[in-house]
Amino acid sequence: MRIKGRPYRTIWLGDDGWSVHVIDQTRLPFAFETRTLRTLNEAAEAIATMVVRGAPLIGVTAAYGLCLSLRADPSDAGLDHATARLAATRPTAVNLRWALDRMGAVVRRRPPAERAAAAYAAAAQMAEEDVACCRAIGVHGAALIREAHARKGGGPVNILTHCNAGWLATVDWGTALAPIYVAHDAGVPVHLLVDETRPRNQGAALTAFELGAHGVPHTLLADNAGGHLMQHGKVDLCIVGSDRTTATGDVANKIGTYLKALAARDNGVPFYAALPVSTIDWQLHDGVRDVPIEERPTREVTHVTGEGDDGAIRTVAVVSPGSPAANPAFDVTPARLVTGIITERGVAAASRDGLLALYPEKRVGTAA
Amino acid sequence: MRIKGRPYRTIWLGDDGWSVHVIDQTRLPFAFETRTLRTLNEAAEAIATMVVRGAPLIGVTAAYGLCLSLRADPSDAGLDHATARLAATRPTAVNLRWALDRMGAVVRRRPPAERAAAAYAAAAQMAEEDVACCRAIGVHGAALIREAHARKGGGPVNILTHCNAGWLATVDWGTALAPIYVAHDAGVPVHLLVDETRPRNQGAALTAFELGAHGVPHTLLADNAGGHLMQHGKVDLCIVGSDRTTATGDVANKIGTYLKALAARDNGVPFYAALPVSTIDWQLHDGVRDVPIEERPTREVTHVTGEGDDGAIRTVAVVSPGSPAANPAFDVTPARLVTGIITERGVAAASRDGLLALYPEKRVGTAA
Repeated sequence: MRIKGRPYRTIWLGDDGWSVHVIDQTRLPFAFETRTLRTLNEAAEAIATMVVRGAPLIGVTAAYGLCLSLRADPSDAGLDHATARLAATRPTAVNLRWALDRMGAVVRRRPPAERAAAAYAAAAQMAEEDVACCRAIGVHGAALIREAHARKGGGPVNILTHCNAGWLATVDWGTALAPIYVAHDAGVPVHLLVDETRPRNQGAALTAFELGAHGVPHTLLADNAGGHLMQHGKVDLCIVGSDRTTATGDVANKIGTYLKALAARDNGVPFYAALPVSTIDWQLHDGVRDVPIEERPTREVTHVTGEGDDGAIRTVAVVSPGSPAANPAFDVTPARLVTGIITERGVAAASRDGLLALYPEKRVGTAA
Repeated sequence: MRIKGRPYRTIWLGDDGWSVHVIDQTRLPFAFETRTLRTLNEAAEAIATMVVRGAPLIGVTAAYGLCLSLRADPSDAGLDHATARLAATRPTAVNLRWALDRMGAVVRRRPPAERAAAAYAAAAQMAEEDVACCRAIGVHGAALIREAHARKGGGPVNILTHCNAGWLATVDWGTALAPIYVAHDAGVPVHLLVDETRPRNQGAALTAFELGAHGVPHTLLADNAGGHLMQHGKVDLCIVGSDRTTATGDVANKIGTYLKALAARDNGVPFYAALPVSTIDWQLHDGVRDVPIEERPTREVTHVTGEGDDGAIRTVAVVSPGSPAANPAFDVTPARLVTGIITERGVAAASRDGLLALYPEKRVGTAA
């Protein structure tokens, strides 16, 4: 998508043909800076510290991280080490494991001397597939927005989203925001209600940034406000992303998503999750019980970073000194609260049957 | 309650016998400063800018604001002007209107020369009643905490609260936190889960501060986290305050309360609101439809104030420049989601019958 008129993806190769460039998302929205990753360690750190974030982008970054590692050490031991190092960076997003498994399948059967080149080709293909996949999610989701617009009989469709599942979370287009971009570009009036998404403020910093850059009307909200707006008919639709979705349609996503899904259900507002197939963990059947939830540093809760009146980026403490904090980063919205799951193949009911109807090839490996 | 060993109330008269002293709650938790109110205008501004906040404290501050005004102008016109000025400061808290009505009833029938003295006596009585009332709420609510502790068979009772309904929101003791102080002081182990309460961070700044000052174990959370913790059995009880509760038991409270009540219901966690009778608006029967919800400045959403590493208090922007925001300050939790209402007279079912059973004298004025 475009920033100041120039098209960007979130990850690309440098002119040298091997170094990996990413947008430093910890600096947005106040500074637009790119970072160059040249080693396994730099790639792993970029994921762990959320220089890159968003389940699909984490997957592609891990794939390129493996490329960087194989360039330096293409041995079996090097491959094992790099895979383990990258897999340990973030525990919740299943795309990370999916990407590493796929890369492993491509490179392990080759002799070490061929591994790096094969890995770069596979990572590039993964990135291209992510773009096509997100675009397809956008087309399917935009149909739901068009329907909501028709039901409304005029006026913009008010869509609430949580965290950032926009193009910054993927290689391009986004997942939850892809339908918004497709609908907006096609002239369907949309108005986004953007949860700020404490504690890391991805909604305020990233979603508002990318919507603004693309010219999509939006309003920032405290995470607390969505229920009230739904009670008063001010939300037509919710669309969120996902970091891992079970085979039964339970949706793990940024902490607080579950609360919005409850409010949507209580007020008859349709609630959709948009995600590529790589986000579905076909091995899991009970999301609340089985999805590992990352506990992040409590400083993310006790401190806030922003821009001072003088333009300097500063971090301030917002809590009484000495008060302990907790920081679970994701929660799980049970399938019963999810109206539908938007994937690159269409819109599925949030259930085993619904997902298998879209992905019949997964039926083979699934216990009856 | 105590700060650094010294007992404080939130509002008291100066040694001159007429000026009004309050704790500046906009400066907490980083600076403990008091402010002196000497005029109607200073009192009204203190309420509007949230130097004082919390429904019961707003009521008592308005009462003293009327005293300050009557000292300067005890005429009928002065009384009318002051009442209107104070009533307009905050639209949601019904205690404000209740306090002004009660003060008006005391002073209007007196000759102007006697009004100021009568007002000071009435305001002092209102403050003393608030302390006794909150202490009684604490005793009734502590019984629920003891029951939860017995049910649990050991370990601290984990209680989630939203915003600040502690002693800083009242003259002393608090509403939602009064049961916690009574239980803690009686040796019942409690552990508070404190929502930070964006956008103004009253949980992080005030609730964590007063719990820490009193030595009550607590953990600060992003507002998004409570649902996840309830899904995993980490919350035994929710207790919140209220700014206005309808005759039917609908609870208006700080924005985001409704989301926590939905999660509590979804996970079988008891959800209580603690409030004095002055918070009940016997005229209202449908909270979502009828309680006016204050829209506050959007800068509260787009900017965050905290303490830098150098000890300076700074305000930083947290959103992409140019992004619009909305800031509804309260929401309404329908009675169907409220397990019980803790008042100075006991614990009522959240219903017309439940409340009237505790306040039979209100039955007279209520249409059948």
